[in-house]
Amino acid sequence: EKANGKRKPPPVVHYKMNNVTSTADPVGNRETILILTPLARFYQEYWDNLLKLTYPHELITLAFMIPKNREGNAATLALQEQITKTQKTGPEKHRFASIIIERQDFEPPLSSQSEAERHKMENQKARRAAMSKARNSLLFTTLGPSTSWVLWLDSDIIETPATLIQDLAAHNKDIIVPNCFQRYTDSKSKDVKERAYDFNSWQDSDAARKLGEGMGPDDILLEGYAEMATYRTLMAYMYEEGADINTEVPLDGVGGTALLVKAEVHRDGAMFPPFPFYHLIETEGFARMAKRLGRAATGLPNYKVYHYNE
Amino acid sequence: EKANGKRKPPPVVHYKMNNVTSTADPVGNRETILILTPLARFYQEYWDNLLKLTYPHELITLAFMIPKNREGNAATLALQEQITKTQKTGPEKHRFASIIIERQDFEPPLSSQSEAERHKMENQKARRAAMSKARNSLLFTTLGPSTSWVLWLDSDIIETPATLIQDLAAHNKDIIVPNCFQRYTDSKSKDVKERAYDFNSWQDSDAARKLGEGMGPDDILLEGYAEMATYRTLMAYMYEEGADINTEVPLDGVGGTALLVKAEVHRDGAMFPPFPFYHLIETEGFARMAKRLGRAATGLPNYKVYHYNE
Ligand SMILES: Nc1nc2c(ncn2[C@@H]2O[C@H](COP(=O)(O)OP(=O)(O)O)[C@@H](O)[C@H]2O)c(=O)[nH]1
Ligand SMILES: Nc1nc2c(ncn2[C@@H]2O[C@H](COP(=O)(O)OP(=O)(O)O)[C@@H](O)[C@H]2O)c(=O)[nH]1
Ligand SMILES: [Mn+2]
Ligand SMILES: [Mn+2]
Repeated sequence: EKANGKRKPPPVVHYKMNNVTSTADPVGNRETILILTPLARFYQEYWDNLLKLTYPHELITLAFMIPKNREGNAATLALQEQITKTQKTGPEKHRFASIIIERQDFEPPLSSQSEAERHKMENQKARRAAMSKARNSLLFTTLGPSTSWVLWLDSDIIETPATLIQDLAAHNKDIIVPNCFQRYTDSKSKDVKERAYDFNSWQDSDAARKLGEGMGPDDILLEGYAEMATYRTLMAYMYEEGADINTEVPLDGVGGTALLVKAEVHRDGAMFPPFPFYHLIETEGFARMAKRLGRAATGLPNYKVYHYNE
Repeated sequence: EKANGKRKPPPVVHYKMNNVTSTADPVGNRETILILTPLARFYQEYWDNLLKLTYPHELITLAFMIPKNREGNAATLALQEQITKTQKTGPEKHRFASIIIERQDFEPPLSSQSEAERHKMENQKARRAAMSKARNSLLFTTLGPSTSWVLWLDSDIIETPATLIQDLAAHNKDIIVPNCFQRYTDSKSKDVKERAYDFNSWQDSDAARKLGEGMGPDDILLEGYAEMATYRTLMAYMYEEGADINTEVPLDGVGGTALLVKAEVHRDGAMFPPFPFYHLIETEGFARMAKRLGRAATGLPNYKVYHYNE
């Protein structure tokens, strides 16, 4: 409002969306990145890793969707503390262009957030439907007309190369996903080892297709469960020690722990189906939907990022 | 930037999405409306009708998606002229909260925009796929975390009751659609008469379901074509002179000429499939997708809005 109490004529904002690019040289072309994180638990290592990303922070917007429950309140407090530190008193180059925090209740799909409980097969459908809605809600309310790329990054991804964004974008793919691993301490030898974590990035199989055909329209295919042998080719197992980190493989399903998407793929309509879509939901359904939109997914089996170990 | 050239720590924006309501009393609850218009042609009557809407304009954001071609340039100029008049020199109460204009190229689906050419059956799939992408792009980039309602309003809707938004919202439905008619001059009597225009709002039939089952996965069902008898019950023909304007009917497909949607339905992921979804695309596919998300569509057969007549 003006001083005289009159409402100011509000601005008209024009966007020429054809001028928004997403290229192999996003830094050179000053392309904006939206990092989207559904966040139920806050990890300091996640934030520290985020700060180390060398992509110009003034081109990065962060947006979080946090459940409105006790766990979410604690996560919001911890996150807010780090944000204040970074944006107010941290080094200039650490500061991000803008930060959005959204709080929302969803039908609580599970009573416990433990890794064991989360991964039980009978819990997967409700859980991943709820996750899909959280992702869609975050996406639909933060994607802008001048966003070039969307980086999906789970809150428990605690270690990535500092050049993650540039490295993934350099492949100039519609959808690209690194290989998500997890470090753990071997109980016998006490050595720190690592193992594959995310089994949602895969190439389809005839067996899985046949399983799907025999299912009811509301049933979903799940990966990583012995009870449901899909014989899909999992990117998790394509990792080769010492091989080229830039090796590309085509994928039919993708995981969302770390996932770079050209913003126009989302703008055309690709979202995370909360309902069975070709018997797939959430990030796997997203890859299928993108394919229906003529957009392929690519995996980088030798390019690793690391998931927290509870 | 500050005067000393230092980048200001950017603000963190918090949204409590549970506090965003969409109720039967949107004026009383100060609910914000996003009016979305894909616009290929500008009609003065559309703008005049918009200005007459009695919903508080300070709660309304307008957003347009206009193709980046010659026709779109002309439409943008004409629109911009009216916007300037309304927002700068028009009566205070006419002014909208904010206005967004997005310009974008799509693969031009048709060489001509004439009503006859648009409605040819063989042109419908490509045309409506392109329209779906235009709608999704507009939706994904303008929907905010505090939007309560989305009103889809085609640029050739030139006459509605002034209380359109309040009247539709009063039904408190996830998705609600009035009956879209068209006035015309009878060639013999020269009387001004009216006829049904939009055939995309319908109740499904066994015949249509059977047609769908016999189709390939990429085929679509279309309404209003003699070549494809669906025997669906069309809202267009449910209109009863003098009957209650608040009569509700359940719908399986909806048209998008005028269409009110609770914002959370879109935020959950309901969009306009540019690909055949249960053999449906665009607004009809949207209704099907919403149903998959547990959200029903309602029609008001006796509540009329009017489409331009070329
Ligand atoms: N907004 C929101 N985020 C969630 C919810 N549950 C999990 N998350 C976040 O979503 C991401 C994936 O969930 P997670 O439990 O790590 O999945 P998993 O590693 O596949 O078992 C992580 O970033 C979580 O912090 C939820 O109910 N709401
Ligand atoms: N952005 C955009 N809008 C379009 C395009 N074609 C039509 N429109 C608009 O989309 C709406 C529906 O299109 P229209 O041609 O009127 O469809 P019909 O009345 O069903 O034949 C109208 O508001 C048009 O102005 C297009 O290619 N791009
Ligand atoms: Mn996780
Ligand atoms: Mn029209």
